[in-house]
Formats: sequence, structure tokens, C-alpha cells
Amino acid sequence: MRDFTFNNPTKYVLGVDSVRGSLGKELKNHGFSKPMLHFGSGSIKANGAYDDVVGSLQEAGIEWVEAGGQKPNPRVEICRECIKQYKAEGCDVIVAVGGGSIVDSAKCIAVGVNLEEGEDVWGVWAGTTTATSGAPIFVVLTLSATASEMNNGAVITNMALKQKYAYGDSFNMPVVSFVDPKYQVTLPKWQTVNGAVDTITHLTEFAFMAASATAKDGLPNTSLHMIEALIKSQIENCDALLEDPTNIARRADFAWAATCGLNQMTDCMLGGGDWCVHMLEHAMSAVSFNLSHGAGLGVVLPGYLRFCDKVAKGEVTRPEGRPQPECLKEFLARYCKNVFGADSVEDAITAWKAILARWGHPTNMSEIFAVYDDIKDTNMDETLDQMTDITVGRGFTGQLLFPCKEEVRQIYELAK
Amino acid sequence: MRDFTFNNPTKYVLGVDSVRGSLGKELKNHGFSKPMLHFGSGSIKANGAYDDVVGSLQEAGIEWVEAGGQKPNPRVEICRECIKQYKAEGCDVIVAVGGGSIVDSAKCIAVGVNLEEGEDVWGVWAGTTTATSGAPIFVVLTLSATASEMNNGAVITNMALKQKYAYGDSFNMPVVSFVDPKYQVTLPKWQTVNGAVDTITHLTEFAFMAASATAKDGLPNTSLHMIEALIKSQIENCDALLEDPTNIARRADFAWAATCGLNQMTDCMLGGGDWCVHMLEHAMSAVSFNLSHGAGLGVVLPGYLRFCDKVAKGEVTRPEGRPQPECLKEFLARYCKNVFGADSVEDAITAWKAILARWGHPTNMSEIFAVYDDIKDTNMDETLDQMTDITVGRGFTGQLLFPCKEEVRQIYELAK
Repeated sequence: MRDFTFNNPTKYVLGVDSVRGSLGKELKNHGFSKPMLHFGSGSIKANGAYDDVVGSLQEAGIEWVEAGGQKPNPRVEICRECIKQYKAEGCDVIVAVGGGSIVDSAKCIAVGVNLEEGEDVWGVWAGTTTATSGAPIFVVLTLSATASEMNNGAVITNMALKQKYAYGDSFNMPVVSFVDPKYQVTLPKWQTVNGAVDTITHLTEFAFMAASATAKDGLPNTSLHMIEALIKSQIENCDALLEDPTNIARRADFAWAATCGLNQMTDCMLGGGDWCVHMLEHAMSAVSFNLSHGAGLGVVLPGYLRFCDKVAKGEVTRPEGRPQPECLKEFLARYCKNVFGADSVEDAITAWKAILARWGHPTNMSEIFAVYDDIKDTNMDETLDQMTDITVGRGFTGQLLFPCKEEVRQIYELAK
Repeated sequence: MRDFTFNNPTKYVLGVDSVRGSLGKELKNHGFSKPMLHFGSGSIKANGAYDDVVGSLQEAGIEWVEAGGQKPNPRVEICRECIKQYKAEGCDVIVAVGGGSIVDSAKCIAVGVNLEEGEDVWGVWAGTTTATSGAPIFVVLTLSATASEMNNGAVITNMALKQKYAYGDSFNMPVVSFVDPKYQVTLPKWQTVNGAVDTITHLTEFAFMAASATAKDGLPNTSLHMIEALIKSQIENCDALLEDPTNIARRADFAWAATCGLNQMTDCMLGGGDWCVHMLEHAMSAVSFNLSHGAGLGVVLPGYLRFCDKVAKGEVTRPEGRPQPECLKEFLARYCKNVFGADSVEDAITAWKAILARWGHPTNMSEIFAVYDDIKDTNMDETLDQMTDITVGRGFTGQLLFPCKEEVRQIYELAK
């Protein structure tokens, strides 16, 4: 077991028309009077979220300021402009209307507006500036995947420096998050699939950490049961939504499972997540800008599972000092059985690829290289070398096995 | 689906020696300076909790007031005394040190100290007085079962009026709850078993509500998966603890599963719990004061499951206006399969009784009557009639099926 503290004060409101009925009132009850609406490309005007937000504010007699135009993989450069605007207009709360990127961006703005004059918000993400507070954040979610609506984390990109970092602190938890499933009915199929793969990978990264339990402690039973439950639920929800994207009850169920996937609850007793699969995927996105996060995660997972299997079976000689977790074998057997009904890692991978295939998602690295324009004409070996350098360059390749450079290269190879 | 709001601000700290290291500091950080320690018969002096609490307060230089002596099934009469003492001594926070009864009692005291002069706290539980705030509550938990450490509910007994009611509001959520599993190592076997049965019943009462989903909505998938996961986890944890009561990691896992069983999360999308099984058990405890809550719950569950099965199959003619939920059949099939690996309700009951038997817990009503001194010489039919009157007298016999008097009697019969 690992000691833990669970503290999630975000008020999470799920329901059709919940925004229209409550956003303005909630802001008023909290004493806020000048929200900055923060959003992206304007899809919120197509899915109905913008009308609900504005309608609710008008009914409550609240004036607002608009700050749109943020991009996917949210950019600090745009956050800086929003920070200036927030201060200039005397706003007192941010209302993030969009998906995970917009919520992350709102968290960056929230931190930035509370910094001392002259301090740049990127310093907080780069680890050179200390933040101690943030402006309050309300969320109106339009895409379920990252769970940013109920956690304190935010991944921000610095275009100028070509850096992408995560940062989070308790003061960056949203105050209230509204999830109205009707906004998600019009999502393209690939966004639903990517959301599911993202959630399943978050949960799997947490589960991997159970493998580092000692034989004496045994595997953290309750956390693993909950993780397995949420993965199974999200696979079923995604299947059902590809069948009928307009099923509002399923959209709601999908949204709640996605939130629970990374709302600080599922990793209790696990000491956070492993995140090796995420690190490997970030490097894939870095060489292929067109590759979506979910697509990369789904494909690299089998490579990591195979590598874990080899370590568990003692088939690889690890460099000195790299972990050889006691419970890895026991964990893999449980994970493969309980999540995929499989008796071996290879059977679990076969089951996972069958799921990806029926979702129209690439199933291995070769398919990624064949499909994505910006890498399909490259030499695969060279590109995998490049991805390995990027992964290792970050200095962190996961908590559980912390693979070295040669091993990272091997994992990509195992995902071919 | 049902719309829901999830908001649980309690900070939950789980870890060996967490109280000793943090309680005093947490109180200080929150600005509290005069806690009232509230506890029961003094078992906290045997299990180490009292020494940790007092040691932590001394290290932080905090003086305290003691108010012990509360009983299981906590009494409003004792709460009233504590309310007087809290005000007379100028306390500013309650530290509840004990199991669910002590936490419930602390919630009653917390409400009572904030009422207007002359208002009696029982009025709040009886529904005749409105409370709008409560004193802050910290918890040091020594027995995991009720999850009162992370919810807003409290069941209080009025000995004079022979009434027992539940009440809860958001201001009654504990601020911080400490769960140190080492206090639970010395629990008698029957208390561990009763804790497990209580948690499993809470989760089952929530699951039953899924049965009222419409065929169009389908069963609330994510909530059911989480409930099933927690039930399975708690069965495994209880088995492991009966094998080795000193396994600290299992004690921690058991504690976390018990908390998740009723911390307002597992019933999201379900509209609360059914609570019919609880109502039926309360009447059993009312005729047999020696019967523990967990023992009664475990035995009456099969009767309710059988009754649900009959309704689902159309084998009983229900009185006009009583619910005939669309999804009941589908729900029962899922619950029996996913929780007990059973293909029918009878097979699930057989599996449940096998679990009770290996835990040394009574498995049916006849055993209860044979075992408990205060009912073993009574006429069973007459006592079941009496229990039926008590159940129906409360006016509420559950949300899902809301059985009428004849049906309540039949459920007891089905649990014979």
C-alpha cells in the first residue's frame, strides 16, 4: 500500500441543460460578476454550448468578456494575451467553454493573472517561477477525454521554445464543472474514439503502478478493481456510441467514466501514474504533428506491455539500477485477465488490437507510418531513432520501469 | 441516466501514523485552537488512536476538551450534553475519534452548537427544525463500515421517543478525515465482517436503483461497473483479513473500499440508494437489540432479491400504483452475473450465503432467531408480523419497489 490524500473540491454537475439552468446562478452565488469566457476555434457555437452559456449569463444579468482563439495543444503565447485582457477588463473569474485544451489553457491564464507584475506565466510551467494562487475557474465541458474538468493538471505548449510541460496545484482545481452530454452528440467519430483511448490509457498508466507493490503488500485491490471497472465501462460506452452517437445517456456515461479516469481518485494507493506510454506518445506527436494523442497512445501501449512482459519473465538484462518490480508478473496476469479476459500478454494485445480495429483506429506503428502524411515517406528506423531521442531528452521515461535509451527504442520496435 | 451533482470537499488522508504526524498541524492550518475530542466507550485508548491524537495536539501546542461516553447507535441525549459542554468551554472544532457512530454523533453536535438558543437539535433530525450551518468536524476513524467519514449523513437515536432518524446536509461534511489502518488491526472478527456486509449492502442498495432505468436509457454502465468492482474488492479484502487480521495493507484497502461505498460517488447517475434492505433491517434491530446491523442486512438481502425476481418475472400481482420497473429483469441478470458469477437470482443467493457462511455470519432468518437471545424464544411468525409493522410504520420501504405491508411480510418470509 501507499499512503494517500484524496481531496477534490470541484463541484461536478452533469445533466442535460445544466449549463443553461445553473451557470449564471452559480457564478452569482459565488459572488462573481465579470467572467471571461475562454474558448477555441468556435465549435462551441455549433454544438450549442455558447448559446447556453450566454443565455444563462443574460438571465442572471451578468456581463462577460470573450477571449477565444485558443488552439488544440494550448499555447502559452495565446494564454499571455488572455492574461493581459483579463487584467485590463477587470475580470474576476474564467469560464472555460470547450474540451481539455481549453480547460488547460484556462488554468494557465488563472495562474498568470495572479503572478507579480513582470513575472511570465511560462516560468511556472518551466519550473522557474513559483505560483501560490490562481483565479477561480468554471468549466463548461464539450469533449470528454482529459478529465481536466476535475483535476489540477494542465499541459501547455511554448511554440517559441518548442517545449510542452505539465503543471498543477490544488488552487488550479475548477470551482464548478458543468457537463452537458448534449454538446457531445455531434462529435466526429474519431474524437469519441480518441477520448476513449485517452481515458483507457490514463487508467492503464495508473494500473501499471500497482506492479511496483511489494509481494508482502500484494496488489492494491480496490484501486485495481475500480480501474478495471472504468476501462471495461469505457470500452462498452465507446462501442455503444459508435453504434448510436445520439444516445444521450451513453454520452453522459462516457463523460463520467472519462472524468473518473483522471480525477485524482483512481490512483489513490498507487502513487500517481507510470506515464511511460504518455512519454512515448508525446515523442510520436512531436515527429508527426497530424497524429492525435489518442491515436498514438493506442498504438504504443502494446509495445510497452510486451516490454513489461519481458522484464517480468527476466528475458531482458536491464542496466544496473533500473527497477525489477517484484509484483510485475502478478500484476500483468491480473491486468490482462481482468481487463481483456486474456491468459497472456500477447492474448491481451490481440484483444486490444481487435478493439482498436473495430473502432477504425490504427493498431500498430506501421499503420501510423502508412496513414499520416507527415511521416509516411520517412525512413521508419530513422524516425524511431528520432522519437527515442525526444523521449529520453525529456529525462523522464516513466515511474515503473524508467526504461533507458536502448529500452525506449526497443519498446517502439515492439509496437511495430 | 439521471442528472447528478457530485461535490465532496472532505480531505481524506489515509496512512499509517498519519494522525500523529498531521492532525495538530491541520487544525492549526485551519485556524482552530480548541478542539473537543469526541469518542465512545474508550476503545480508542486500547487501539492507539487516543495516544496519537493527544500526542499530535501536544506537539502542535493545542489544548483540548474531552467528551467521551457516546454509545453505538448514538443517542441524542448524549449529544445534547456534548453541545452544552462545547459551548461552555468555547470550543471551535469537533474531533471525532472512533467509528461511524462517533462520527454521526459529532455531526449532531456540530449542528446543535450552531442552532439558536432554545432550539433542540432533535428537531433537526425529526424534521421540525431547520439547520443552516454546523461546526467544523475532523475525523480520526477507527472502524471502517459506514463511510460517515466522507459523507454528510448521520443516523441518531432518541431513546426517550424510541425514534431513529437520518439527516444530512453539505455543511456536515467532515473537513479532514484521517484513516490510519493500524487502529483496525485489533478489531474482533465479527466487526470486520459486519463492516464488509454493511459496505456491500450500501453498494447493492445503490445498484438496485439502476433497475429503474428505462429500457431506452439502458443501465447506468459506469456506476454499475464501479459498484460491482467495490463489492468484489470488499469480499476479497474481508476474506484476506479473516486469514490475517494484521495485514496493514489489506486493512487500508478495506478502509478505502468502505469509504467509497458511501462517499456520494458510487451513486452518481443512480439517484441515491433504494434502502429497502436497510429499512427491513432496522425493524429487525428494533425487535432484537443484540442483533448487529451488518448481521441483519446480510440475512434480509436474499429475501429482497427473491422478491425483486418475482416482480421481474411477473410472478406477483402488485397493488395498483406500485412500480413495475422496466429494467428490473436486465438489472438482476447483470448484478447476479457480475457480482456473484451467477446465472440466476437463486444461484446468486447461494453464492452470497456461501460467503456469509465462511465469514461465520448467520445466513438466514431462522439462524438469526436461533442465535440471538432476545428473540430465540419468541414465535417467529408473530415476530415477523411485528417487524413488518415497524417497517411499514416508518412510511418508507424503499425507492425501487416501495413494497406494501403484505409484500414486506413476504420479503421476510422469503428470507426465512
